[in-house]
Amino acid sequence: FFPSRPCCIEALLAEAAEPGAPARPCPCPLPSGDTALSRLVRRLLSARRSLDLCLFSFSCPQLARAVQLLHRRGVRVRLVTDAQYMGLHGSQIGRLRHAGIQVRHDQHSGYMHHKFAIVDRRMLITGSLNWTTQAIQSNRENVLVVEDAEYVKAFQDEFERIWEEYNPANYSFFP
Amino acid sequence: FFPSRPCCIEALLAEAAEPGAPARPCPCPLPSGDTALSRLVRRLLSARRSLDLCLFSFSCPQLARAVQLLHRRGVRVRLVTDAQYMGLHGSQIGRLRHAGIQVRHDQHSGYMHHKFAIVDRRMLITGSLNWTTQAIQSNRENVLVVEDAEYVKAFQDEFERIWEEYNPANYSFFP
Repeated sequence: FFPSRPCCIEALLAEAAEPGAPARPCPCPLPSGDTALSRLVRRLLSARRSLDLCLFSFSCPQLARAVQLLHRRGVRVRLVTDAQYMGLHGSQIGRLRHAGIQVRHDQHSGYMHHKFAIVDRRMLITGSLNWTTQAIQSNRENVLVVEDAEYVKAFQDEFERIWEEYNPANYSFFP
Repeated sequence: FFPSRPCCIEALLAEAAEPGAPARPCPCPLPSGDTALSRLVRRLLSARRSLDLCLFSFSCPQLARAVQLLHRRGVRVRLVTDAQYMGLHGSQIGRLRHAGIQVRHDQHSGYMHHKFAIVDRRMLITGSLNWTTQAIQSNRENVLVVEDAEYVKAFQDEFERIWEEYNPANYSFFP
């Protein structure tokens, strides 16, 4: 459950970037203890092969750095987001696209309101939490981590449906 | 998964209000088949003792009618919501309070962003879905139904924490 205390995840990111490298303490004043955010980052960084993200709103720079790191490490990252929210101030979508990550979005007036991630097609992370600093630090939020194959498959199927539906080849700019 | 086709839930509500009464067909033109919304309503109406709701935004009149019906049937309904969203146009919170249902809300600038319901302290209904007609009919949304005691307990505990924290006796209008 969130809100999470503000915390530093540099140590987690550094360890994931260079496993076994000597830890260099981060100069920032934030504590680096166990928080809801650090637990979420840890689950994401456990990805070895794939990370499928379906996120209404993504503006948290810390989570964007974790996703970029996985992409650099060769994990196949796919990201679906909402067309209206991807352009808002602070959105990390442009940065992630620039880094070479595949992003697709809806073309509808309805929202793509999901907030879930699937790690290696086996771990589902879902809940009320948008990936924004406000949600992480200020809101009452929940995140469920589920490894039950039945639930994971239902969300993976939903992801693949949306991924195909939002394929740019299917855009109809003049409906 | 949502969106759901628009549908009529009058038959479900009538059956819950008067079990066994002869079905009177509703004159509205909407289909009354099996949809994501009708499945959600069916789960809610299965409540016999208690319904604990923790909802960021609640403006869907159909769901409000289901909740009122449970209240009239003697189910103990408690509702926690977000202070900023409860007053928006179309919100059902006033109507539910007027019907005698206990409602509490936060006093913070952060959102009470949960969207979950617990039926009879044994069934958790949670996901990305706000209880609004737009979300139900237009958005890509997910709702999970979980009866695993471990998950239900975690959410029930979170509900009780928030219920106490938002007790009007604790209000501090001049912090």
